[in-house]
Amino acid sequence: MDSNQTLPQIDLPRDMIHLGIGQPSNHLLPIKELEKAAAHCLSKENSFFLAYGEERGNANFRQTLAKFLTGQYPNRVDPEQLLITNGNSQALDFICTLFTKPGDTVLVEEPSYFLALRIFADRKLNLVSIPVDDNGLVTDVLRKKLETLKPSFLYTIPTYHNPASVTLPLKRRENLVEICAQNDLLVVADEVYHFLNYSDDPPPPMGNWTGTCPLISLGSFSKILAPGLRLGWMHTNVGLIKKMTKSGLIDSGGGFNPFTSEIVNSFICLGFLKVHIKHLKTVYGQRIKVFCDQLRMHLPKQAKFKIPKGGYFIWVKLPDNMDTKSLRQEARKHNVDFHQGSLFSHNKELKNYLRLAFALYDEDVLAEGARRLGKVILENLS
Amino acid sequence: MDSNQTLPQIDLPRDMIHLGIGQPSNHLLPIKELEKAAAHCLSKENSFFLAYGEERGNANFRQTLAKFLTGQYPNRVDPEQLLITNGNSQALDFICTLFTKPGDTVLVEEPSYFLALRIFADRKLNLVSIPVDDNGLVTDVLRKKLETLKPSFLYTIPTYHNPASVTLPLKRRENLVEICAQNDLLVVADEVYHFLNYSDDPPPPMGNWTGTCPLISLGSFSKILAPGLRLGWMHTNVGLIKKMTKSGLIDSGGGFNPFTSEIVNSFICLGFLKVHIKHLKTVYGQRIKVFCDQLRMHLPKQAKFKIPKGGYFIWVKLPDNMDTKSLRQEARKHNVDFHQGSLFSHNKELKNYLRLAFALYDEDVLAEGARRLGKVILENLS
Repeated sequence: MDSNQTLPQIDLPRDMIHLGIGQPSNHLLPIKELEKAAAHCLSKENSFFLAYGEERGNANFRQTLAKFLTGQYPNRVDPEQLLITNGNSQALDFICTLFTKPGDTVLVEEPSYFLALRIFADRKLNLVSIPVDDNGLVTDVLRKKLETLKPSFLYTIPTYHNPASVTLPLKRRENLVEICAQNDLLVVADEVYHFLNYSDDPPPPMGNWTGTCPLISLGSFSKILAPGLRLGWMHTNVGLIKKMTKSGLIDSGGGFNPFTSEIVNSFICLGFLKVHIKHLKTVYGQRIKVFCDQLRMHLPKQAKFKIPKGGYFIWVKLPDNMDTKSLRQEARKHNVDFHQGSLFSHNKELKNYLRLAFALYDEDVLAEGARRLGKVILENLS
Repeated sequence: MDSNQTLPQIDLPRDMIHLGIGQPSNHLLPIKELEKAAAHCLSKENSFFLAYGEERGNANFRQTLAKFLTGQYPNRVDPEQLLITNGNSQALDFICTLFTKPGDTVLVEEPSYFLALRIFADRKLNLVSIPVDDNGLVTDVLRKKLETLKPSFLYTIPTYHNPASVTLPLKRRENLVEICAQNDLLVVADEVYHFLNYSDDPPPPMGNWTGTCPLISLGSFSKILAPGLRLGWMHTNVGLIKKMTKSGLIDSGGGFNPFTSEIVNSFICLGFLKVHIKHLKTVYGQRIKVFCDQLRMHLPKQAKFKIPKGGYFIWVKLPDNMDTKSLRQEARKHNVDFHQGSLFSHNKELKNYLRLAFALYDEDVLAEGARRLGKVILENLS
């Protein structure tokens, strides 16, 4: 079976099913619609988006994006509240430049997105973790930590968490906002999976509270359109946007990605984005069903997981004495792979967890992956 | 006269001629050719460039770019020596993340590109300047400084300097490389104007010496195609590229700008880039002639400048007792503006210099700008 489409960032053996990879299948990348969007905007006479762009990002696009978000969110989003980015990784890096210096404390969740932890490590930040339970970030622990700490910001993934797949309920969101307002703590909310719900709608995005506490909500087209565009946005208050646009990086290069912004502007205006997100939800929703059924069938009962309500990931807990890092060695021999839990812990804990993703493979490959994984876990249970 | 085309980053009064702005005229942005390039690459079946890209950047594009550079440079450029960026501002910011921490010393030229100075200031770096004379960076001073300093890197603009318009001759390039090799000093060479020569060819780019001393040559499509693409490259050695691709930012987001890279790949493959650069050289070469003639005609003889051999800028020296910052107040009243010299000095020196650019305006506007500027300077000579 050649289960791996072209994956330029990752060099995988032909028969390997890598259930760790959080990337969409190539056939889910809407190249034909992007072709139409590019033709739509490049056939115009006005080439403003080829010049150094407005600091906050392409104004056309911010207008269109604000309208789109307003249609999706419970509250109105104003174009003045948006700053266009090269995606959430670049946004996080930029936030580090603006709000931290080496040695500063930053609060992260345990578990958290492993590559965000890497970006923070590159900045030599002092990471302190707050646990995540079935309802996301444990706000009581946060409140306690803030009695002694003065962190530069809190990095949280409130909806369809990567990797834990949990979602912070409305009540806790309000709680979080209240705590951060009281402590003047900047919340950096990575809301990249917000639009990918497979059953009920999620709670309002954290972007809803930009007026209540210092907060930057990060959105991205990587999961709802195409990662290669390297396009995302910050949704925050006008004061923070002013501070950010005064940075040397933006003043020198102009706003981020004005050209790609204009193409995605056309993509949204032509109605493609709504249709595409709906399609993704259908495809991923169906994959989850099949994959979880197969996992229930093949994984030993000691492996615990919940069916995700959105996002990209399933977070599996194995018995405490198991180490998923060494389990990966065994798994690879069976042509299956995943991401070990310790990747998602800045202290390399969570050794008995593993993350599975279902965005990359079609249902038959996922089913085969579940079968192989079940066999490996079963063989390695002590 | 409505001399200002759409300039989204800058809000200019209708009648103002701002001779400070280093941006190309909108009609010099090749939107029709970009439309063809986008259609060319998006009509293909393979959508790899829409996925998270290879860490060093889109492989197709690196191949094409290496071939293009090899055709322009005296020595061969290998795709393995290239890392794709979002343009030189982002590249500088990224270099700061990788090679510096706040308080580190960085060597800059006096004068230097003012927004690079801003990027370094955001990183709280300790800037030490090396003077620039008619032949660029004074390498003897550099050698002396290195007896006592251990800087993180040297930032230099070797060819058609911004703002001084001077070019480092071959002999001094060899000298610079020798000094930096001896001192293990990283050279960051901003070679953004290298392709824009209006008479003789420039000396070999600093990228020629990536094997001799630690060196990163920064190239960009901002001046030779369109700033809004936010696309550039680093040309360096394989060891440094390996170090850079191990950063959390690249590991998380994938290579920079894979989508735009593919469009520019088509732009180059379709032969548009060579034609466009030739066109720019003709247009800018003609503008320089007209503008310098008019400046000679209208500026008082106390204002000294040299005719630039390439790039975007004319660097004008006024009598020592003049302050071009306050002169700008007067100039604006006459509907003409420029960048004062102190912007290009990290110590706010060079108060009697001013920078003029000729990329934005057509010849008739430049002529009128020269006339207005001459009047203002004449009136303010004491």
